[in-house]
Parts: sequence; C-alpha cells; structure tokens
Amino acid sequence: MKKKVLKIKTKQNSYPIIIGYNTLSKLGTYLKPYLINKRVFIITNKTVSALYKIKLEEVLIQKGIKTNFIILKDGEDQKNLKTISKVSLLLLKKGIDRNDSIVAFGGGVIGDIAGFIASITLRGMQCIQVPTTLLSQVDSSVGGKTGVNTPEGKNLIGTFFQPTVVIIDVNLLSSLPKRELLSGYAEIVKYGLIMDSKFYKWLELNGKKVIDGNRQKRIEAIYSSCKNKAKIVNKDEKEKNIRALLNFGHTFGHAIESLNKYKKNINHGEAVSMGMIFALKLSQDLGYLNKSSFNKVLKHFIDVGLPISLPNSFKKKITLKKFLTAIMKDKKIKGGKINLILLKKIGNAIITNKFSLQKLNEVILLQIN
Amino acid sequence: MKKKVLKIKTKQNSYPIIIGYNTLSKLGTYLKPYLINKRVFIITNKTVSALYKIKLEEVLIQKGIKTNFIILKDGEDQKNLKTISKVSLLLLKKGIDRNDSIVAFGGGVIGDIAGFIASITLRGMQCIQVPTTLLSQVDSSVGGKTGVNTPEGKNLIGTFFQPTVVIIDVNLLSSLPKRELLSGYAEIVKYGLIMDSKFYKWLELNGKKVIDGNRQKRIEAIYSSCKNKAKIVNKDEKEKNIRALLNFGHTFGHAIESLNKYKKNINHGEAVSMGMIFALKLSQDLGYLNKSSFNKVLKHFIDVGLPISLPNSFKKKITLKKFLTAIMKDKKIKGGKINLILLKKIGNAIITNKFSLQKLNEVILLQIN
Repeated sequence: MKKKVLKIKTKQNSYPIIIGYNTLSKLGTYLKPYLINKRVFIITNKTVSALYKIKLEEVLIQKGIKTNFIILKDGEDQKNLKTISKVSLLLLKKGIDRNDSIVAFGGGVIGDIAGFIASITLRGMQCIQVPTTLLSQVDSSVGGKTGVNTPEGKNLIGTFFQPTVVIIDVNLLSSLPKRELLSGYAEIVKYGLIMDSKFYKWLELNGKKVIDGNRQKRIEAIYSSCKNKAKIVNKDEKEKNIRALLNFGHTFGHAIESLNKYKKNINHGEAVSMGMIFALKLSQDLGYLNKSSFNKVLKHFIDVGLPISLPNSFKKKITLKKFLTAIMKDKKIKGGKINLILLKKIGNAIITNKFSLQKLNEVILLQIN
Repeated sequence: MKKKVLKIKTKQNSYPIIIGYNTLSKLGTYLKPYLINKRVFIITNKTVSALYKIKLEEVLIQKGIKTNFIILKDGEDQKNLKTISKVSLLLLKKGIDRNDSIVAFGGGVIGDIAGFIASITLRGMQCIQVPTTLLSQVDSSVGGKTGVNTPEGKNLIGTFFQPTVVIIDVNLLSSLPKRELLSGYAEIVKYGLIMDSKFYKWLELNGKKVIDGNRQKRIEAIYSSCKNKAKIVNKDEKEKNIRALLNFGHTFGHAIESLNKYKKNINHGEAVSMGMIFALKLSQDLGYLNKSSFNKVLKHFIDVGLPISLPNSFKKKITLKKFLTAIMKDKKIKGGKINLILLKKIGNAIITNKFSLQKLNEVILLQIN
C-alpha cells in the first residue's frame, strides 16, 4: 500500500494532506514536527472516541504527547453556536495556550466545529484535522471552511481557517456503515462531474471498489478528490467566484436538508446526491448537458447505490414554494439572485444566474411529486 | 484643517484610514466605492446612537445607502459570546447577504464586537470601522483584532480580521468626557514610549492640546499613533513576535481590569496607564531605563492627568498572589513563561521573559500597597 502526500498552498499557509493505510498508528510521528507544546486538545464525538480513544492515547503518549479529550455528542445538531461557546470556554478553563494544538478527530461535523473553535480561541490556534469518515476525508478537511448551522440555514456562521496538517487513514473507514461511505462517495463523484472527466471515468470503473473497501482504490480516490478540491481552493480561497463550483448539487442539497430539519433519515451526502440529480436534470433541460451524459451519470449513481430521488415521507410535506424559499436562504444567494452550478458536460461545470425560472420550477416539481 | 489618509497593508488586504474633522457628514461619499449592495448594517450602542443616529441616517440616505441599525447596550460587559451569537443570528434573520456591509459605529467595545461578528457571519463580511472614541481611533480600529471577554480573561476569544476602511472623525470626540479622552491618550503616549521618541517629545509639547480639544493636534496625534501601530502590525499581523510590543503596560493593565471585574471605576485606558507605570518602574529597577527618563515620563503622565497609581478601594482587595495569578492568565503567556514588554529608553521597547521574578514581585507589592 502506498501512502500519498498532497501539498496544499493557500494565502494563509501551506499544509500537507497525508493519505495512507493505518496512518493513525504513526500519528505521534506525523504530528511531532508541528507541535510547539507537546500536548494536544482532541475534539471528538462519542462514537469515534468509543472506537479509537484508547488507541489514539497510546500512539500519542508513546511519543511523549499529552492528550486532553473533549467528547461531544454525536450528530449534526451539535453544529451550533452553543457548542462553539461551551467548548471554547472549556478550553480556556483547561488553560489552553497559544502554543497548544487542537486536533479535530471525527467526521465533518467534528471538523467544522473543531476548526471553528480553533479559529477563534485565543484568536487562532493550530488545528490538526484527522477526518474519520469518507465524506470528511474528501471534502470538509480540505479548504479551510469551518462553521455551524443556524435557524436560517447550514454553515451560515463560521470562518475560513486552514489546518496545520491533515492526516487521513483509510483504515478508519472499515468501521463506517455503507450509508456513510455512500455519503462520502457523493462528494467524490462530484469532483469528477464538475472538473475531471478522466477521474469520472476512473470512478465508473472503480467506484464500487472504493465503496466496497479496496484500500488502494480508496487512497487513490481520496487523493484525486482532495487534489481537485485543492486546485479550486488555491484559486479562490474565500469563495469569491469559482470555489462556488464545489457547490454543485449543494444549493438543492442544502434546501433538502433544511426542509427536512437536518433529520437523520437524509444525511448530507444523500441530500447532495439527490441535489446533484436536480442540477443534472436542470442542466439537461436547459440544453447544457446532452441526454446520453445525463443517463450515463444516472446509471452510475444507481450502480453504486447513490440515492437519486427524495423519500416519499419528505415529498409529502414539501411544496414548490417551500422549496424555493429554502433555496433563497442559501448564503451563495447574492442580491436576491440564485447562482446555480450546472453541467455543460461531464468534467465541466459553470456558474450562472441566467436561466429560465420556469425550467427550475419544473425540475423541482418533477422531483418533489 | 487638513484631512490625513493612512494606507494600511496587511496579508489579508489593504485598507485606508481616513482621519479628519467632520468626516461623518461625508460618510456616504467615503463608503460608496466600497459597497456592493447599497445597504449597511450599523452596529452601535445606546449612547452613540442617541447622539448620532439621525445624522448618520441622513448622510447615508442622501447617497442612496439604506441603513439598518442594531443598537446594543453600553459597556464592556456586552463583549461576550452571547452578544456575538445574538447579533449574528439577528443579522441572518434580517436577510444579510455576502455583498452587504457591517459598520462598527462606536468605541472599542463596538469595534471588537462588530468586527468579530463580521468575521464569522457568512464566513466573513465587509466591515467598516467608524470609531467614535479617542481610544478606538488610535488603537482598536487599526490592526484587525476582534474579540470578546470570557471568565478567564479579556479578549480570549476572537479573530484577526481586517476592516475594509476606517473613517475617523475627530469631531466625534467633542461629546466625550475627559476621562474617556485620557483613556485614549494613554494608548497614544504608549506609541511614543515603545517606538517613537520624536513623537513622544511632540506629545510632551502638545499632549495637553490633544486632550483639551485642538482639532489639528488631534488629527496629527491620531495619524502618528495609527502609523506607528500599522508599522508593527504590517510586520506581524498575527502577533507571533514584535506585535507584542503593543502590549506595553497591558499585561499589568489586563490583570488590573480582570481583578477589578471590569467595573467602571477603572476603565481600559486607566488600567493601561497604571500598567505602564508598573512596566516603567520594573524597567528602571531591572536597570534597563535610567531614572531621569522614568521621572520625565512620570511627570508627563501627571501633567496631562493620566492615573499613575491604583485606587485605594482596589488595593485593599488585592494580594501579590492574586495579582500574579491574574497575570498568568494573559493569553500572551506561552508555556507558563511571562513575556514582559520593558523599556530600554524612551522610544525603544523590548520583549523579554528573562527577568528577576523577585523584582517583578517588588514592583507589584509597591504598587498594590
């Protein structure tokens, strides 16, 4: 098994993403060059800590690194300002200083929370991301977005804050349920669709292996995903323009999650998967994407097991008006104009606010009925 | 009266500080080039809004800029995470979008709160600083520090976030009580002491005029203060090393404020003024600063009316141990070592953690007894 290292360069700093198998057992060695104080404050959740806390303590203490765990409840509903406030104050109470480091050890929720906390505690601490889910390994640990949800929508409060180093261990994925793996795969296939047709083709051949547990394919898929994301983030760290491409499927996906009140019957990756179908259909209806490409992607989604339509229980409660209102709350909306990410062809996405509202309505109606 | 403009360059961005008399009446003209949406969310407090809200609305509406006021209670105790959370959520509820701008209209407390809110709402909004006190004009509107207080100490949670433009109107100072003016003057004299002996000499000649209301002298004093601060901030935006020089007197000052529970009988500038006396005395006792320089500065403090000793009511409650504990909580403390800013001569400060603890104790004992 070959370890891969990706160097990310941003305006704020540069940092490596180390992707490999069983990297967790060498975590102490990887972290040591970055630590000033030889102690870390590890923010994690109950599920992850039940599985890995003992191992993590062991590998860090071996290298003389003191550990201090802050264990949050599981779930997206922890992503709120109260958690941020509570944990920041707790860290200060524990006597954290500027030469200490925070480790985000968990999925996207933990990464977003811990990153946000690191960015505001003592006006910015070192943050080391150790993502434990496929979704966070390919998406939320790269690019420096942190944040929490509010009654008005997802991730509306947060910061742009780059990690010091990201350590990815594909071995951690072995404890993930398939639904979680698919959730991450939705983001992986997104990179192929919006910017990398070669990678998309590779996924058509290897996607199932990635989901089913082939370690080397997982390393490669994560590497390509992070590399594609980094390419965009390097050009546009603060989402002034092309970074919005990464939101392919997300405007719809966020609306779905928000209308579903972030309940667990639809997780983020599933919402994005369904959201991409909205965007693909609209791309086709507006004459951007040809029908055979649309069908090819739809087939791939079905083949690997990605959800392509909304659950009936959800459809029942939704109207066109509700859906449009939810879309308008997305923070990418500027001056009341909806910016959509659409596909011209596989591997080539565009951002536009010029499209027929009629067609948008039709696609939404088709999906919610 | 001549308007002065100072260009600040930071890693994040570049922005001008416009310093003049009655600049508020041209605020619309100054802001217009920076606004994308022609509306601003103005965060201010009761006192400032009672004095200037009507005028501010008038000058902005004249230029076609819509205003939306968020009026906080007065006082340092508003600087907490609850306020940040409440106001951020309110802004989202009001439908703020990424092309809107936040205006911080008030003193240092408002600047810190509004800057922090701007840095996290939608992961970062434009923030325009319009400081209304001498203290905030020479200090907190320059350099991009934002933050709130916590039970563990001052400004322990916040961000580094640069404003888009700073507009300073010395006319606003006419409504300030003398105690507030002196509070700002403490920071002004600090710049002379730590890095600009020429400016310090100018202050010995003109300091009283600055305090008493001479408009041109005020513009000049603010310009020199901001310029000195900018010189340091440019070199070290995130306070890794020399930015700490700006904390001359502040390690002691923060301890005083924290032990006094931020009560109004000692304001920030007064605490800094007394803190500088601690630092000056220690500088002399450690053999850095000669006695005649110490006496010269002491005389200047007395001449202009800066407080040089702690109030008796405060002294009664304080012990050496309590004072040392409070110092140790300062966020500049790294790995348990106290970094002190001391003066070698007027206009030349150093940062050191190598000093006799015995001498430190003696100076504290002298001041608290």
